[in-house]
This record gives sequence, structure tokens and C-alpha cells, in this order.
Amino acid sequence: MTRGRRSVADHRAAVVAVLAATGLDPAAPAGLGVEELPVALTSLARDPHRWRDRILAADVVAAASLPLFDNAQMDGYAVRAADLTAAAADAPAALDVLPATVAGEPGALLRTGQAVPIMTGAPMPAGADAVVPIEEADPPWFGDHARVRMAASVPPGRFVRRAGSDVAAGDLLLRAGSALTPAALGVLAAAGALAVSVRRRPRVLLIVTGHEVRQPGETLAPGQIHDANSFSLGLALADAGAEIIVAPCESDDPVRLRAILDATLPGADLLVTVGGVSAGAREVVRDLLAPLGVWFGAVAMQPGGPQGLGTVSTGAGEIPVICFPGNPVSCLVSFEVFLRPLLAALATGGSSAAVERPRAQLPLAEALESPRGLHQVRRGIVDADGRVRAVGGASSHLLHAYARSTVLIHLPAEVERLAVGDDVETWRIDGCR
Amino acid sequence: MTRGRRSVADHRAAVVAVLAATGLDPAAPAGLGVEELPVALTSLARDPHRWRDRILAADVVAAASLPLFDNAQMDGYAVRAADLTAAAADAPAALDVLPATVAGEPGALLRTGQAVPIMTGAPMPAGADAVVPIEEADPPWFGDHARVRMAASVPPGRFVRRAGSDVAAGDLLLRAGSALTPAALGVLAAAGALAVSVRRRPRVLLIVTGHEVRQPGETLAPGQIHDANSFSLGLALADAGAEIIVAPCESDDPVRLRAILDATLPGADLLVTVGGVSAGAREVVRDLLAPLGVWFGAVAMQPGGPQGLGTVSTGAGEIPVICFPGNPVSCLVSFEVFLRPLLAALATGGSSAAVERPRAQLPLAEALESPRGLHQVRRGIVDADGRVRAVGGASSHLLHAYARSTVLIHLPAEVERLAVGDDVETWRIDGCR
Repeated sequence: MTRGRRSVADHRAAVVAVLAATGLDPAAPAGLGVEELPVALTSLARDPHRWRDRILAADVVAAASLPLFDNAQMDGYAVRAADLTAAAADAPAALDVLPATVAGEPGALLRTGQAVPIMTGAPMPAGADAVVPIEEADPPWFGDHARVRMAASVPPGRFVRRAGSDVAAGDLLLRAGSALTPAALGVLAAAGALAVSVRRRPRVLLIVTGHEVRQPGETLAPGQIHDANSFSLGLALADAGAEIIVAPCESDDPVRLRAILDATLPGADLLVTVGGVSAGAREVVRDLLAPLGVWFGAVAMQPGGPQGLGTVSTGAGEIPVICFPGNPVSCLVSFEVFLRPLLAALATGGSSAAVERPRAQLPLAEALESPRGLHQVRRGIVDADGRVRAVGGASSHLLHAYARSTVLIHLPAEVERLAVGDDVETWRIDGCR
Repeated sequence: MTRGRRSVADHRAAVVAVLAATGLDPAAPAGLGVEELPVALTSLARDPHRWRDRILAADVVAAASLPLFDNAQMDGYAVRAADLTAAAADAPAALDVLPATVAGEPGALLRTGQAVPIMTGAPMPAGADAVVPIEEADPPWFGDHARVRMAASVPPGRFVRRAGSDVAAGDLLLRAGSALTPAALGVLAAAGALAVSVRRRPRVLLIVTGHEVRQPGETLAPGQIHDANSFSLGLALADAGAEIIVAPCESDDPVRLRAILDATLPGADLLVTVGGVSAGAREVVRDLLAPLGVWFGAVAMQPGGPQGLGTVSTGAGEIPVICFPGNPVSCLVSFEVFLRPLLAALATGGSSAAVERPRAQLPLAEALESPRGLHQVRRGIVDADGRVRAVGGASSHLLHAYARSTVLIHLPAEVERLAVGDDVETWRIDGCR
């Protein structure tokens, strides 16, 4: 039953090799090129999706220093430290109070013997070199008093944020390949950036085949079914960070599939097909792509045995194609095992914890059997005791059972039977990415 | 220094209470109401963001059974099991081959002594009750032969997927409160759903204040700075699953802030303000909202001490308001500690692993000091040995240091000094959500 099949590891490696050969190396995701985002609130608020999970495409140098000017770290009085060298509890220094300085206003010139009320973030007046917090002044509030007393000396620089103390103009602000986190976007804006170069997201063309497949709302003739794969795999691709083009081919005619490819492939970085890959009498994907050199064969996995992999030519060059079987469960499992981590690495620069599904070794709540020689992927749930139970059987048509599951359960190829309490590898599929 | 301050835990509880009192209970997130998504590929492909991380607002009942009709689980021959009861290797049964049945075509009627070539997913012909896989037939391929031999009996139902075996029409398909995962969306489409009711996302109005604040591209007068908070907090809110309305108030005038609120608040579920909350001479948020009953005070946290919390009235009722301090680092830390988990729970139904930042107790690579009585939140990185090191000092103006960090480091209120090797709680801030 398993002779002539490619192992799961070998097929995964083959997918990596095909992606790498066509400029989509998950280990060097810069190959996708660059997209410019304008640093503007209208863009962020209108389309936050465009800003989420992005990776910087180039080093960013600080256009301005941060802080841009010396400013107060506390609400209080800007002073000359030299005026307070002799100040003590029993011999407070008395300073003349000038009009207040607030954030956003140019500072006045401070002369010896003077103090200026200053608010956090306000520029230090010329001549001042320290801030005395309001609660250490006498009186400890802002009012219309003409003089204020200070009962202690302060070192120069106290509670002053020096210009450039966070980053100096011309210094490296953010590194290529790092994530555009909220803090990174904030510091870009603070330092005066008007645009930011991020890596382009992989654009995936998804073509679900099958002349029995109809879209939602269409009346079904006998033997026809509604399209599940375009929706489940489309959302799964988007969850992994891809942009998607969805072009179902409601046909088993290679001429029709070729026409769809010609119309849609030039805009894509990667082609994913669903269905038409096994050894039946009419296999539209295989019929069209095998003669073009795309590999079709069996992988030692259940579900998801029949697979295809290769490249197709367009005017713009070779585009990788990965072909999944048509059963919705087989298709999603194939995506999880062979494509999702690579796509997420491409989309997120590989640095994100989200690239791999959260994995855990968990004990079984029930015995499970698996055909020897096939890596079986079951769908299941984790009970209150942390034990794993399969939902539905192994059959690839049980999409409802998949939808009720929270983990994938991996039964390796060499395993035939696992007992209650035996540990299995699980992948969480209910969280974010 | 810390007298009169609210503890971090108390303020967090106060935020929960305010949200719950205004219909935004993270423990009962159905309060936000419902949004209808059309199950249509145009919607999914054009705006996948609208489909990601959604929670079902109501139970969904299967409109159709899955599978919709009995169909073949393998490529092979549909047969009557009764015709093969006597079949054996030395006495194969010979059956007449009818024209093939493929997926999407109504099945022919199978009479005794007949076999029909059938492809995976194709409807079982009337009269057939089992499938013999092609590799078990003689010859083991599809051709134009008129007869095929079978060398073994088969039980009725073998390799037949029975109609309704995944889910029966009228049964519960998906439960309210569960995630709209790829598999869930797929099974909805397969079962004929035309629309799906999901929980509405919280809509957050973000108002950054400060008359020194200017937008990207604006020329800065002395003392002015570019807006960082609208970008960093805007993206952080979107990352947590919120829809955002961003309306900066480049002013410290309460009349101006009031006008912005009147114009923008009616569309929002929650108001977040930034800046103008401490005890300075001109604090626009506090000046406007304290007289309306919003609480302002100090929380025993550093950064993020000055906070505000309460509700504001609109024509449509009370809307919760949470007021963060204006320093970008203070603002982001306040968001992480007081709002992000609640907002993510509201947006994702609380079931997602993404609600909390991934936490870990990690040893320090350096000694750290923290003021007694204040819960200090430092920004840091984890070195190759898994030890934590602070990036930049404790000061709240070091946004660039924050942007280079991958973890928040929590130094609890009772801690004054931690030594090299002491464990600290860290929150990962570089992954998804």
C-alpha cells in the first residue's frame, strides 16, 4: 500500500526546494520585493490589515533625533543647577518665577536666580539644566506666586530628557527584516518618516477544480456539491499572511483550466490548485500540468496522499505550483503540513512565533490505529484533563468533524496502534495563525 | 512616593467593571451585537481581514446533509455486494462494465451482474452498495474492457460515504461563540449557507491629545513633535482585533476636544484618549472629563502612572472611556497591561490563545532595580542563552528602545532589586497579537 510513496519529510523538502528555486525562499523572504506604506492616519484607519504583520524591507535611518530637543521629564520648575548648590532644608534657595513653559512652545531664556514652571515634555528653556519636580518645591503647586523655594541641590541634567538620548539623527532606527510592531511604527512616525518599505506579501492564486462544484446560492443538480475548498483554503491562506486571488474552475476540462491560468496567473507569486490530482479517469489538474513537467505522485500521508508539485511558465517566468487533493479535509491537512509554515515564514519574515502551529505532546484519551507506512493526521479535541480524543474517523470527507476540532493529531508512519495514555504530537488549529 | 496610588490589579479590575457595565463584558462578548458576512468568494478575496479571527454570533444548523448523497470514497467500481458473496481468488466473479460514473453526474441504475467505474466523490448509482477499489479489480485499470473480475467478497457499504454521515440536515453545524476557522467556513459553504452571523468587532475611537503634536509631513515649530501615539496605539488596537477610528486632537483646549467627541463618539463602542491626564497645569482630557465624573488618579505602575477611567454620555448611552498618559512608552505599556487582553477577548470571544501575550519566567542577564511600591514594566530582549536583558532605561521617552525590544519585563511592586539569574515574568511582544 505504501510502496512508491514519497515520505512526508521528502515532500516537504521538495516544496521548500521548488519555492526557493522560484525566488520564494522562506529562508530569504526578501525575494518577494517591496511595498511602500504611507505613514498617514487615513491609511492606517481605513485599512489596518495592510499594516498588520508586516516586515521591514530595508534598514531605516532616523531622519530626526528623538527626543528632538531637551525636554522636561517631570512637571516642575526648570532651573540652573548652579543656583541651588547651597540649597538645604534649613537654607532654601529662593528663585523668581517666570511665566510657564508648556509642551509645544519655545522656551524662554532662563537667567540666574530664575525658575520657570515646566510641564512634562516641554522644551527646556535656554539656560536651564535641571528640573525640580513640583512636589519638591515650596509651595508644591503651580499658582501665581512670584517666588519659589527649593530645599535641596540638584545635579545638572536631573529630570531632563536630552535630545538624541533615545536615538540620534542618522543612526540606525530599525533593521531590515524586523517586524513593523506598534512601537516600531510609532518610532518611525516620531522620527519623521513619511513612508515605510515593507516586504510584499505572497500573492497566491487559488484554483479549486471539479465540474461538480458550484458556488453558494447556485441550485445543485444531482451529483453536484457546493464549493467548500475555495472558502476553507482561501481563509487559511489569508490567515497565513497571503494575499489571495480565488478563481474556481467548475470544470474538469483542461482547456478551461488553461484559460483560467492564462487570465489569472500573471499576477500571482504561487499557484495552489485543489482536486484533479489522483489516478482517476479524469483528473483535470494532472491532465493539464503533468505534460508540462509538474510532478504528480503519492505521499505517505493520510489524508492527503495524492499531491502535485512543480512550476508553470508565464511571460514573467516560472511560478511554483502546489496541487492538493480535492477532499476538503485532505486539502486543509495538506496545506497545514506542506505549505502553511512556509507561507507564514514568507509573509512574516520567519521571525514570528506564529509561523508554526503551537505544538504539544499530549496523552491519548482513547486508543488509535493508523495504517503502517502512512503518516496519519487525525482531527481532535483536548479534554479537560489535557488528553486528546479524535473527532470523527480518519475519512477525508468529514469536514464537519474537522470544524469541531481544535488540534491535529499526528500518528507517524511507523505507528500502527497507540494505546490510551500514549503521547501524540498535536498542533493547535483554533488560535491565531 | 506611592501613597494614594491604585494597585495595578485594582485598576485592571476597575477597567473590567467599567467595560462590563457598558455592555462590553469580555466574559460575555455577545453584547457587541452581530455582523452578517455573505458567504461569497468576492467578499473573501477582496477583504480577507473581514473574515479573519471572527466568532460565530449564533448557532448554525445544517441546511443540507453532508455528504449530500451517497458517494464513492475511492476510485474503482460501484457494485452490488450481493453479486460478490461467492467471489474468491480461485473463483473470481465477473461483472459487466457499464459506462463510467464521475463526480457531478447523476448515477445510472446498477442491475445485478453489473459494475460501474466510479471516481472518488461521484454519486453511488442506484442499486450499488459498495465500491471495489480499482487496484483490487482485474484488470486494475480503467479501460474499454467489457467485463471486470473481482477476486473477493465485499461487505455492503464498503468505501461508500453515506449521505449525512458527516452531518445531517437540521443538526447543529456550528456553535455560537466558536471561531470561524477555515474548516468552519468550509463546512458552512458546503452545507449551503449564504451568510454567516459573526460578532461585531469593538469599534474604538482613539484620540491623541497635545497641542504640540503634529502629523507626518507637517513642519515642526520649536517645541512641536510628530504624532507617535496615533500610529503605535492605532496599530496595537487593530492587532488586538478592534476596528479603529483615529481622530487626533492637536490642541490642549477642552472645547476643541469636546467638539471632536461630539463628532466622532456616536459611532464608537469605546473611547481611548492619550495624554492630558496628569497633574500639570493644562491637562485637556482631565479638564474636560473629570467634571463629567471620569476618575483620574495615579496607578502604582511605572511607566503609566497617571490614568483615567469612566464613561461618557452620548445620545446612544454611556460609552466607556479609558485615558492613557501621553508618553508613547507609557501609553503602549498601559495598553498592554490594562486594555489589550480585554479587547482581544471581546474581539475573539475569549477562546483564542492569542488573548494573552505569551508569558514566560526567564532569568535575568543583569541586575535590575525598581522603585519599591511601583510595578515597573521594562522593555527588553532575550539573549541566545534565554536570559533577559533590558533595552534602554526605565524612562518613558525611550520609544526607540521599546521598538527594539521583544519582551516586556515585569518587576512587581514589592521588588526593589533583582540579581543576575533571578527569574522575572516576561511577555512576548514580537509575535502575533
